[in-house]
Amino acid sequence: MPNPTAAMLVIGDEILSGRTRDANMHYLAGELTKVGITLGEVRIVSDDADAIVGAVKSLSDRFDTVFTSGGIGPTHDDITADCIARAFGASIDVRDDARALLAAHYKRAGSELNEARLRMARIPDGAKLIDNPVSVAPGFTLENVHVMAGVPSVFQAMVASVLPTLTGGAPLLSQSLRINRGEGDIAGPLAALAQRYTELSIGSYPFQKDGAFGANIVIRGTDGAQIDAAMTELAALFPE
Amino acid sequence: MPNPTAAMLVIGDEILSGRTRDANMHYLAGELTKVGITLGEVRIVSDDADAIVGAVKSLSDRFDTVFTSGGIGPTHDDITADCIARAFGASIDVRDDARALLAAHYKRAGSELNEARLRMARIPDGAKLIDNPVSVAPGFTLENVHVMAGVPSVFQAMVASVLPTLTGGAPLLSQSLRINRGEGDIAGPLAALAQRYTELSIGSYPFQKDGAFGANIVIRGTDGAQIDAAMTELAALFPE
Repeated sequence: MPNPTAAMLVIGDEILSGRTRDANMHYLAGELTKVGITLGEVRIVSDDADAIVGAVKSLSDRFDTVFTSGGIGPTHDDITADCIARAFGASIDVRDDARALLAAHYKRAGSELNEARLRMARIPDGAKLIDNPVSVAPGFTLENVHVMAGVPSVFQAMVASVLPTLTGGAPLLSQSLRINRGEGDIAGPLAALAQRYTELSIGSYPFQKDGAFGANIVIRGTDGAQIDAAMTELAALFPE
Repeated sequence: MPNPTAAMLVIGDEILSGRTRDANMHYLAGELTKVGITLGEVRIVSDDADAIVGAVKSLSDRFDTVFTSGGIGPTHDDITADCIARAFGASIDVRDDARALLAAHYKRAGSELNEARLRMARIPDGAKLIDNPVSVAPGFTLENVHVMAGVPSVFQAMVASVLPTLTGGAPLLSQSLRINRGEGDIAGPLAALAQRYTELSIGSYPFQKDGAFGANIVIRGTDGAQIDAAMTELAALFPE
């Protein structure tokens, strides 16, 4: 049985403008690989309602699970929760359970639960809250979409809450071999190897360093013995 | 007049598996911002023909220009050129101009232009070659899609060839202010400011450092004087 699939939607102008380099995608990709969920697509869209709604619908239809990051804070540019509600035709308002979490937190901190902060309690009807041990304001799960914060420490904490609730597959194993020859010399034998090991995914990732060309060959699959066998053949083909 | 728009399609299993962290997206985002082209969406898809073809069609329809990175080398997993041809219904084969570039290069290098390397001369009918000063194998432009290599040094050289051929807009200017208060305290006055400066984009990017919360407020637009005015108001709202 093929592994479950996932997609990620990163919401935020700051990455598209080049101001910030996304960190959450790389983190999530690694975590999903460990539990045997295949990350099939990532999209990065701006803080634009139509773009967010369209991407959520498309990804939610095509993948088992969708993770979003960004746009659930208290400021005017945080529109993710409302967009998710719109994508699924759910109603949304300040919800009592989320408000209670925030009220207790700001009371302890001696701050006011003002109108802006109350925006973070806007949760679609029917959604399940995702715990935020870092800064309290919750994420939520609606249908197959997990809506999480963009701040990396909070995003990672929310991933840690959500992952154990998902059904994973066989963990994806991989081995890699660095070959110090141009891809053009490697490609023929590598294609032949890939044709013999149809259950493995064999990728070639070229690099250039100090003027010399080479490639990292990565063999991935769920059967460790098969990966071992293919890697042994590969190493014999290209002795150092 | 709004600035021209662009999208980027990153092709490669290695980023989705978490093995590699993409560098090209961040680079392109910065270069486009400098010349006044708005990067509106980025997609990352796996080395899967249907996924690539679908993404190219969708992005090419909705944005003025599309940039792709990855999948144009000589190995069996390099299928981008054929997918781009399929997306536009163009035929594709080894093309004489590209073959001549490769033949001269490998002759100089004393290597063989074998069948694998010839794959890099597969260029769709009607496409214009993109110069590759680093490793010769060209990229190409078909319709509004610029197809470029995934190796960062080559990708960057190709971006440098392509960008001067595009019509840019007014460069996007930005200023940012770091405010050491939680977003919940900032959000109300910030929303009021954003409502008064409708031509500017005002974003709030929260962070958490050493247990304290804060946010970087970024004001973007094409009118420097307006950005100055909004930034002066913002600084007065939140004196240190």
